[in-house]
Amino acid sequence: MKQFPQQWQGFEPGTWVKEINVRSFIKHNYTPYDGDASFLEGPTEDTVTLWQQILDLFRLEREAGGVLDMDTKIISTITSHAPGYIDRPRERIVGLQTDKPLKRALMPYGGIRMAERACKDHGYTLDPSVKEFFTVHRKTHNAGVFDTYTPEMRACRSSHIITGLPDAYGRGRIIGDYRRVALYGVDRLIEDKMEQKATTRSAMYSEVIRDREELAEQIRALTQLKEMALSYGFDISAPAKDTLEAIQWLYFGYLAAVKEQNGAAMSLGRTSTFLDIYARRDLENGVYTEKQIQEMVDHFIMKLRLVKFARTPEYDALFSGDPQWVTESIGGVAIDGRHMVTKMSYRYLHTLSNLGAAPEPNMTVLWSTRLPENFKRYCAKMSIETSSVQYENDDLMRFTHGDDYAIACCVSSMRLGKEMQFFGARANLAKCLLYAINGGVDEISGEQVGPEFRPITSEYLDYDEVVHKYDKMMEWLAGVYVNTLNIIHYMHDKYCYEKLQMALHDKDVTRWFATGIAGLSVVADSLSAIKYARVKVLRNENGLAVDYQVEGDFPKFGNDDDRVDTLAHDVVHRFMEHIRKYHTYRKGIPTTSILTITSNVVYGKNTGATPDGRKQGEAFAPGANPMHRRDTHGAVASLASVSKLPFKDAQDGISNTFSIIPGALGKEDRIFAGDIEVNFDCAQGGCCTPTLFEALDEENQS
Amino acid sequence: MKQFPQQWQGFEPGTWVKEINVRSFIKHNYTPYDGDASFLEGPTEDTVTLWQQILDLFRLEREAGGVLDMDTKIISTITSHAPGYIDRPRERIVGLQTDKPLKRALMPYGGIRMAERACKDHGYTLDPSVKEFFTVHRKTHNAGVFDTYTPEMRACRSSHIITGLPDAYGRGRIIGDYRRVALYGVDRLIEDKMEQKATTRSAMYSEVIRDREELAEQIRALTQLKEMALSYGFDISAPAKDTLEAIQWLYFGYLAAVKEQNGAAMSLGRTSTFLDIYARRDLENGVYTEKQIQEMVDHFIMKLRLVKFARTPEYDALFSGDPQWVTESIGGVAIDGRHMVTKMSYRYLHTLSNLGAAPEPNMTVLWSTRLPENFKRYCAKMSIETSSVQYENDDLMRFTHGDDYAIACCVSSMRLGKEMQFFGARANLAKCLLYAINGGVDEISGEQVGPEFRPITSEYLDYDEVVHKYDKMMEWLAGVYVNTLNIIHYMHDKYCYEKLQMALHDKDVTRWFATGIAGLSVVADSLSAIKYARVKVLRNENGLAVDYQVEGDFPKFGNDDDRVDTLAHDVVHRFMEHIRKYHTYRKGIPTTSILTITSNVVYGKNTGATPDGRKQGEAFAPGANPMHRRDTHGAVASLASVSKLPFKDAQDGISNTFSIIPGALGKEDRIFAGDIEVNFDCAQGGCCTPTLFEALDEENQS
Repeated sequence: MKQFPQQWQGFEPGTWVKEINVRSFIKHNYTPYDGDASFLEGPTEDTVTLWQQILDLFRLEREAGGVLDMDTKIISTITSHAPGYIDRPRERIVGLQTDKPLKRALMPYGGIRMAERACKDHGYTLDPSVKEFFTVHRKTHNAGVFDTYTPEMRACRSSHIITGLPDAYGRGRIIGDYRRVALYGVDRLIEDKMEQKATTRSAMYSEVIRDREELAEQIRALTQLKEMALSYGFDISAPAKDTLEAIQWLYFGYLAAVKEQNGAAMSLGRTSTFLDIYARRDLENGVYTEKQIQEMVDHFIMKLRLVKFARTPEYDALFSGDPQWVTESIGGVAIDGRHMVTKMSYRYLHTLSNLGAAPEPNMTVLWSTRLPENFKRYCAKMSIETSSVQYENDDLMRFTHGDDYAIACCVSSMRLGKEMQFFGARANLAKCLLYAINGGVDEISGEQVGPEFRPITSEYLDYDEVVHKYDKMMEWLAGVYVNTLNIIHYMHDKYCYEKLQMALHDKDVTRWFATGIAGLSVVADSLSAIKYARVKVLRNENGLAVDYQVEGDFPKFGNDDDRVDTLAHDVVHRFMEHIRKYHTYRKGIPTTSILTITSNVVYGKNTGATPDGRKQGEAFAPGANPMHRRDTHGAVASLASVSKLPFKDAQDGISNTFSIIPGALGKEDRIFAGDIEVNFDCAQGGCCTPTLFEALDEENQS
Repeated sequence: MKQFPQQWQGFEPGTWVKEINVRSFIKHNYTPYDGDASFLEGPTEDTVTLWQQILDLFRLEREAGGVLDMDTKIISTITSHAPGYIDRPRERIVGLQTDKPLKRALMPYGGIRMAERACKDHGYTLDPSVKEFFTVHRKTHNAGVFDTYTPEMRACRSSHIITGLPDAYGRGRIIGDYRRVALYGVDRLIEDKMEQKATTRSAMYSEVIRDREELAEQIRALTQLKEMALSYGFDISAPAKDTLEAIQWLYFGYLAAVKEQNGAAMSLGRTSTFLDIYARRDLENGVYTEKQIQEMVDHFIMKLRLVKFARTPEYDALFSGDPQWVTESIGGVAIDGRHMVTKMSYRYLHTLSNLGAAPEPNMTVLWSTRLPENFKRYCAKMSIETSSVQYENDDLMRFTHGDDYAIACCVSSMRLGKEMQFFGARANLAKCLLYAINGGVDEISGEQVGPEFRPITSEYLDYDEVVHKYDKMMEWLAGVYVNTLNIIHYMHDKYCYEKLQMALHDKDVTRWFATGIAGLSVVADSLSAIKYARVKVLRNENGLAVDYQVEGDFPKFGNDDDRVDTLAHDVVHRFMEHIRKYHTYRKGIPTTSILTITSNVVYGKNTGATPDGRKQGEAFAPGANPMHRRDTHGAVASLASVSKLPFKDAQDGISNTFSIIPGALGKEDRIFAGDIEVNFDCAQGGCCTPTLFEALDEENQS
């Protein structure tokens, strides 16, 4: 593209003109905003009316038992549905997943039984011809995976030593760079993809063939995206010309993704500062008023709040609810040192005022000590008022991901359009410790799940023996785990490829091979108990260690005590070293997360008693949290323990769920913005759940 | 399987008891037959009646314009159809591809457009929901290939320098070892496949994942095979107990294959000597009479004659008709020196008398000088009477393939259950020579198809320059060709995997990567003309060489003249050396065939004038044949030229279509069996078309 299209008039050129490079566009054109929130506008009449209609629909949905309507025959594709509206004349931004609001789409590529269950559980019946077709002629991701699993993998899955695997749901964690649709228009993106296809390697190795076919699929997806937009009356082949079009084009890109994929976490990216460039130009040129722009943003956010999928009760149990993780990353600091807060950052958060609090989209502030004070205060205020803002440590993540990354789901950071993640759920390291003690026999089922290593037979656990055996068992577990994920992601690519999302990526994408661990603080405390106290093994009639009696006290994780914090550190490090030993699919780069915000309860339920005194079935602590009530030395000590975990071994994120009761930090006068930073320096890119702000909120009201 | 099942009583044990090994079973149990044909029985009344009904159906089919009935909605799978019969009480062997005789099945996995065309061209309309599903949700082999082709590959395909590629039809050339079904029963085969799956490599590299998924598919196919047989009232989970069951079990295996795959050449294997073991036991034990056994064979062959597919006119044009290549390999000599002719070899050929001549099944005698004289005479007699017997050189093929190989299609030899072929159609080496002269520009279209090498600009062709440039152009062509085939076979495996046929193979299969060449004698003669005569180039207004004027005489291929025969030899050898330079899919072992029995006409039509004086559009000689009327030194000299071609570079077969007029070989009194050997010593595993025997027949009648 040699010419500078009319839609770009007023933008400063840069690399982004010659190549698909949204970051360059932002860098050259955005304007940091240091002012306060006083410019923000309230909702328009149309916004209020429209939102009320949506609230009514939500109510009806709840009354209908969770699902208002559902497709049972039309299989969702980018172009499967006629345009859908809520109240066309009032809608500034249009586009629904199906032809009606809250009508859930049928998406069987991931698994026909899941699609059938999702229908059935909500009182609908899947069309038999669809079922037959996807059983006999069109294999699904789920079917491919289960054809391929080894008996060992199945056993590990059944015993929950590996758990929550994306083999019965979409892996998600892929963020299309939806901004590209607005900035370049689809024709340019297609042209770029055709050039990519023309320049693959020429020897047709299977990987090259796969790449070429995927590029063809991506081009097909982009063509369908244009077609879908056209059905709504918009020709998105060319770049967006103003704020309204930019939001609309961008949203169409996202909409196509959620029409095509029911992934766990269909995140939005980092769109606010990008869109601010359009808004600023339009305000300057008198194209739109602030009120109009806020209205567009409000309507855009409404649409994101409507995103829903047809899911099964198992899915909801695993994720404790039915989250979509439409995560939008806001703020952060650029590599050149300027913060990236703009008026649009405010406008996004302001929707929480205009429309009220909501968990989706998952507004995530990329926190830095260098964010402007006004914005920090505004965030704190919004958090207190709505408990709907998530914070992540930009100062830490910028180091590895630069300044154009975004968060997928709750903590997984990736460069937009350049990185994607093979999501991997978690390995239960606490159960792994019990396998080390019992020679691979599951402490609950009594089945031989792990390798038939020699069990520990002594009455009291010997630290060196346990650590040695634990290391061997972790090595085994890492192997089964990585190989299981290899199968899952091979099959996801084969049967449920994210063609639209990947069409909004560069040609050469870095793939993070994300593993995860659960039960870390249980393991740390158990090893500590074995080392510093005496742990007696209680065995059942089959000689299986099923309970432990701790004699004496021992240092516990969460008290800033190096004696045990080192143990936690070493476990993470050793496990990750084992993970790295194994071949990963598609050159995936191994990472780990320590991150179980809610499912820690389920994991604990499926794990026997542990040597730290925790009883069978008791919940684990969430993520990297210390075990409940064991962090007795105050909040800062607790955070300090977590902060010692090696981020380089757990780059996919470490989460620490942290509730503050008034006075917890010992600085009663200032528990707002300043202390949030304390939290985030520790949490290392982890996510902060709303509980923190619930506590703040409580105090504020008292 | 530790026990010796009752169905095996009377069989001599061997390795075959402990492992799936049909060859071992045959070796230990077959009885060579040196007698004559006097034991053979004529058709029974049921046979005559049944065959008349089939002949009536064939007539109706012809009257209906080629197709009697066709599925347009039910997609063919192993279990898609209810049992079909012709005249149940008279049928000894049952099973039809669909629920009615000659009703063609709908098989869209290879390509939905082809399936649609096949319907349309015969006046049927494909069900729109099937079309939509296979367009939107279920990709086909054809769609995958065309998504992936490079522009260069498309150009080579359009210009016909590479031609007849199996990208719009099923590759075929895979022979399931259907005998396994009879000998072992399906349960044992499933058990074996499960063991194979349990012993794949444990690190989940993509190839391992693919193998595991394929094994799962194979096990599924075997389960469906049982189900299909059960619908006909037969439980084939256990071994066949007698001749009738053995034929029926074996046929069910084959039937499942043709229900699942519409491959070009769905060959049967080498079944007669295997079945003779059952027949001999039954005759000895008085279970069946010779008449009964011949009746079973007659009915089995009838069923094979009914095998038909829904195909397009393009396919029929390429293959000059609508051949199925249900090739059955008969006779041959065992590694231990015994010939492998049995009474069943006679019974198979005898169906040509009982039912009349027919091109299918393609009865192929594996000829050896060591076949018993009686059988040689019987073959000659049957050839004379029916022109329906093909012969191949067992003495040559046994050396590389052992004594349990069979012919797929017309010449492709492979060990049963141990080898399969990635079929590759052909490269047009004559056109390649013209590209060498024209610097990659197509002599007919004027398009730059090949690489932009320097063309030859001299008025007269210089041999050394031509040979040098030709070698470079062959190197390029070999690369495009191999890479094109890599794509085709990757996609065939991905979208149209032969799960039933591969279920009747061993775990580790040798894959022949079959390339082919056309126009060999044109190239040899052209190079000879350039070297030994003077060839003037005639160029069009764009400077493109479009015709040649040969001044003087030159040695021609087919006259036992080393000056030109060496040129032919070297071309084959050099091309194969180039082929071997490139990466082949799935560790395929490159081979070449020189084999165009009929399509030589089409290839010639698409090729410009050549330096040997052949005009634009004139047909090539078939296969490795000398050009028509240029072999002026008699038949033996002609055969001698062909015999100099390097079989080690063309192991997939060299064909020589050879018509004898009485007296051609100079030994008027003896042109039967003895001279057939002359032919086959030369043809090197090539196939002998019926024309030879038409000539013999003529003489016999005169």
